[in-house]
Amino acid sequence: MEYFRVRTDLALEAREFIEEADGEIRGVIAEEYDEKDCDVHVTKVVINSKNGAKAMGKPIGTYITLEAAGLSQPDEDYHREVSVIIAKHLQELLPKPGEEKSILVVGLGNRDVTADALGPGVVDNLYITRHMLMQFGKAAYECEKINQISAVIPGVMGKTGMESAEIVKGIVKQTKPDVIVAIDALAARNTRRLNRTIQLTNTGIHPGSGVGNHRDSITQESLGVPVIAIGIPTVVDAATIVSDAIERMKRELGENDMLFSGEGTGTLAEMNNMYVTSKDIDATIKRLGYTLSEGLNIAFDLNA
Amino acid sequence: MEYFRVRTDLALEAREFIEEADGEIRGVIAEEYDEKDCDVHVTKVVINSKNGAKAMGKPIGTYITLEAAGLSQPDEDYHREVSVIIAKHLQELLPKPGEEKSILVVGLGNRDVTADALGPGVVDNLYITRHMLMQFGKAAYECEKINQISAVIPGVMGKTGMESAEIVKGIVKQTKPDVIVAIDALAARNTRRLNRTIQLTNTGIHPGSGVGNHRDSITQESLGVPVIAIGIPTVVDAATIVSDAIERMKRELGENDMLFSGEGTGTLAEMNNMYVTSKDIDATIKRLGYTLSEGLNIAFDLNA
Amino acid sequence: MEYFRVRTDLALEAREFIEEADGEIRGVIAEEYDEKDCDVHVTKVVINSKNGAKAMGKPIGTYITLEAAGLSQPDEDYHREVSVIIAKHLQELLPKPGEEKSILVVGLGNRDVTADALGPGVVDNLYITRHMLMQFGKAAYECEKINQISAVIPGVMGKTGMESAEIVKGIVKQTKPDVIVAIDALAARNTRRLNRTIQLTNTGIHPGSGVGNHRDSITQESLGVPVIAIGIPTVVDAATIVSDAIERMKRELGENDMLFSGEGTGTLAEMNNMYVTSKDIDATIKRLGYTLSEGLNIAFDLNA
Amino acid sequence: MEYFRVRTDLALEAREFIEEADGEIRGVIAEEYDEKDCDVHVTKVVINSKNGAKAMGKPIGTYITLEAAGLSQPDEDYHREVSVIIAKHLQELLPKPGEEKSILVVGLGNRDVTADALGPGVVDNLYITRHMLMQFGKAAYECEKINQISAVIPGVMGKTGMESAEIVKGIVKQTKPDVIVAIDALAARNTRRLNRTIQLTNTGIHPGSGVGNHRDSITQESLGVPVIAIGIPTVVDAATIVSDAIERMKRELGENDMLFSGEGTGTLAEMNNMYVTSKDIDATIKRLGYTLSEGLNIAFDLNA
Repeated sequence: MEYFRVRTDLALEAREFIEEADGEIRGVIAEEYDEKDCDVHVTKVVINSKNGAKAMGKPIGTYITLEAAGLSQPDEDYHREVSVIIAKHLQELLPKPGEEKSILVVGLGNRDVTADALGPGVVDNLYITRHMLMQFGKAAYECEKINQISAVIPGVMGKTGMESAEIVKGIVKQTKPDVIVAIDALAARNTRRLNRTIQLTNTGIHPGSGVGNHRDSITQESLGVPVIAIGIPTVVDAATIVSDAIERMKRELGENDMLFSGEGTGTLAEMNNMYVTSKDIDATIKRLGYTLSEGLNIAFDLNA
Repeated sequence: MEYFRVRTDLALEAREFIEEADGEIRGVIAEEYDEKDCDVHVTKVVINSKNGAKAMGKPIGTYITLEAAGLSQPDEDYHREVSVIIAKHLQELLPKPGEEKSILVVGLGNRDVTADALGPGVVDNLYITRHMLMQFGKAAYECEKINQISAVIPGVMGKTGMESAEIVKGIVKQTKPDVIVAIDALAARNTRRLNRTIQLTNTGIHPGSGVGNHRDSITQESLGVPVIAIGIPTVVDAATIVSDAIERMKRELGENDMLFSGEGTGTLAEMNNMYVTSKDIDATIKRLGYTLSEGLNIAFDLNA
Repeated sequence: MEYFRVRTDLALEAREFIEEADGEIRGVIAEEYDEKDCDVHVTKVVINSKNGAKAMGKPIGTYITLEAAGLSQPDEDYHREVSVIIAKHLQELLPKPGEEKSILVVGLGNRDVTADALGPGVVDNLYITRHMLMQFGKAAYECEKINQISAVIPGVMGKTGMESAEIVKGIVKQTKPDVIVAIDALAARNTRRLNRTIQLTNTGIHPGSGVGNHRDSITQESLGVPVIAIGIPTVVDAATIVSDAIERMKRELGENDMLFSGEGTGTLAEMNNMYVTSKDIDATIKRLGYTLSEGLNIAFDLNA
Repeated sequence: MEYFRVRTDLALEAREFIEEADGEIRGVIAEEYDEKDCDVHVTKVVINSKNGAKAMGKPIGTYITLEAAGLSQPDEDYHREVSVIIAKHLQELLPKPGEEKSILVVGLGNRDVTADALGPGVVDNLYITRHMLMQFGKAAYECEKINQISAVIPGVMGKTGMESAEIVKGIVKQTKPDVIVAIDALAARNTRRLNRTIQLTNTGIHPGSGVGNHRDSITQESLGVPVIAIGIPTVVDAATIVSDAIERMKRELGENDMLFSGEGTGTLAEMNNMYVTSKDIDATIKRLGYTLSEGLNIAFDLNA
């Protein structure tokens, strides 16, 4: 299986993929449970050693995955419940829980590419407070505790000539937030995960991740402040989906890789610039952006 | 191979698919050539008997397919050349060549679903003349011969409660055009065809065709005036792409269908609401819509 | 005051304007009251004679105007209350109250001109039932009584080559609805009315009305079925606003018209293609479209 | 005339306004001429003393205004000519003419408010080179001299919680460009100027300027690098337009201010959140954005 790269941004899938082949992995702890009162399945993967990180192809840290089957459907009540659950898990990862802080939300991705427009969509719906606090102080909000929320949509390199990471770094130097929350559309390995899986992690954004494939890191290491990344897979690489189907078939047939690699390689190369996405991705991205932004709004509200 | 439907709107692919299996088909004549001075490959398939229609799963009529490899890239000069070639072949299919006539262009599809927005995009760029001719006569254009061009974007059933075919039928009754040109985004069977293949046919639009799957016909039979359909494939059904890869693999391995059908069926069902499209589909659809609308503008200009 | 035309689509304003000058008008009955439990002022103007119609420059019929001061602000609860009030007054005007009927909603205006995009926005949010009823019958809705709702966005003449009225006429012939509800953005004479006034009338759409200035009628007379028109003023003609200011000033000063007409004419001509609109018109149009579509959804629901 | 503020971002208009009242101004030099071969009128205003700056309400520096009457119409050839003229005057203001440099283009304004979307529109069409030069060096462009072009759309304070100036400052610190070119939609005092007047200045962006009213400076003083600002007026404050009409009338009538101030004040307050814009502003903004971005592309091309 040398001829293609398994493309997944989900720790959940990386683990599945490895376990299918090798069984348990040292340095990786996983726990799973269902949320009460709402149809959401939670998987928490903690990578706590270099060995685990190498095996998983993901950095050391915590990965919380919410699988919310109904999320791909337009059910407002369910979406509202999922926002609350997102908020709860985001609060687990935020530093200084319950205390006032300044938070910079970064909406990664490309507003003009439907499947990559999740980050910009989240920022469009956020409740922003920083400018009012700067101008009028807390008096603007008539409440005791309030977080200072700012947000930016850095845009994509082809349009800015700059890495998203460079733009964020400049803004962090200038405005000195306590923590960054970065939103991005992800690539999954399995269509079953699309538009219904939310991954939260305290490891930030790494090169090659996201639908748009960032080149530079947006992490605590590169920026000096904690970076929480939240993502939802919206596409599967077309090459991956075919490889996986063939792989499963070969396993079933007990066939040797070599027999098929020639033909397979051609087909996969052809699919190089293609992805698989849901037919209603345009409407879905809008809905998911709103649900996620509501989750952030709830998590950031110190008076709720 | 009972467990999936081969989904292609391209006569070209239907023929390939059949010929791979059965060799030549009675009642189907095909000719192929390259355009001079421009990298476009032309395939003309004429289905002239019921047998041919049955074998191809397409109605009797003429299907011209232009394969323009560079069309998926943003090269303005090449796009302009392709517009001229589209115009030439459209004129072959238009009734009363060289004479004044009234033409209603129908932009099928859904403006809010990127891969299905080709038809609306074409209408947005068309040179419309009917309203000026109705109000001021030919004086408005200072030229001897002028076609009366009108256009409509009927929208999709989920948003209108009406078949596109019903809306078009009503407008045809009211405005009595001489010919209809209907534009639609198509589904192909092969990713190699996406965004670079243009099909022109005098058989109109048939149930189940297009990215959005129309239920009713938009044809000379249903409307009483000739209907020329022009389409560009923008998606491949995800299930089709996997089936095809597996099929090719099985053929290569000489395996029996039955061995794999169980696993295969599950995988395919999962992909039911998914399609494969190019990563830059948002920008591509805009470019293709413009190139196609320019082709129509040139074809409709009697003074060129 | 010969040198400019008073441009208003609101019966309310036509009446004000006339009464300022001439006092009461024969053939026009007006009643005013405040809605209970919600800050909405209702004016009902009934024109019941040719004399009244001539004086008002509006056809015989009923004009209900809702002035909802908070409508221009983003207060969700208030918007929801206004939707209910719109529904109540729309039901007054609909034929066969409480009975099942088929209703065609027409979203007039231009989706690509912000201040004129109200009609298309309303259609985008409507609850459409006709296609489901046609395919599955009432079983699709598990309820005893259901209206058959369809909708169309005819587009503007410059892009279709057809009057909106022609398109609607064709669709009415084909699908035979019992009643038409046409939505349009209006021009007011006073900025105070913008984005907070809703006019409902059973007289349909008349030439020269709307932001886009339709040329043909969409009325019971022209289509053979009742036409209810609902509009919200989103612009004031720039020339009108200046004329009105000057007019008020002259009245205050007791000056003669003639002294100023020269300079005034120049200024007004310059403003010919200009309008006055609110700075947040983009966001406002979206909100108003949603509030209006909710009003229609409530009014059309026979089981509420 | 205390009761309203004259709102204009155009040095041209500030000068006109003052000269009407007071005649020539010390510290302000103005020269005017017509471009050869293209219908564009050039006014160059140089403010070279504190007195001039105070009188004009504008900082010391050079203001070049291009009045291009045809710019508000969709004539492609004329737009192309204007792009070349913009390029010529922009090159006059750029430091280190003919030498390679790094240029950061800043698209100010709000993408979601039509009349304020000029800046974002310009950035969308720019030819960006920085990322390619960073990754592949000059080899990427096969040419001897190339400018390093990057661009950013900072967004508006209500959506980011940050001043555009803060975001730009952070990015400047991080990426160290040699010069900034900031694009913004402006407010004029006269509708005659809308969509056809281009102002280029080496004084940057100052608080209160632009359709969106920035609070902080984007200037050489605040950023440490030269800032060239390019703007096109797309709106007139509604209050301003009425005030001006009344003012002209009073002058004509020889009346005293006081007589009218009561009524006038009420009318103007009502128009507080309103502006005057052209009816086809949506299409116009797209066209102007393209023409301006082409001007920048030409000006930045060292091999032309």
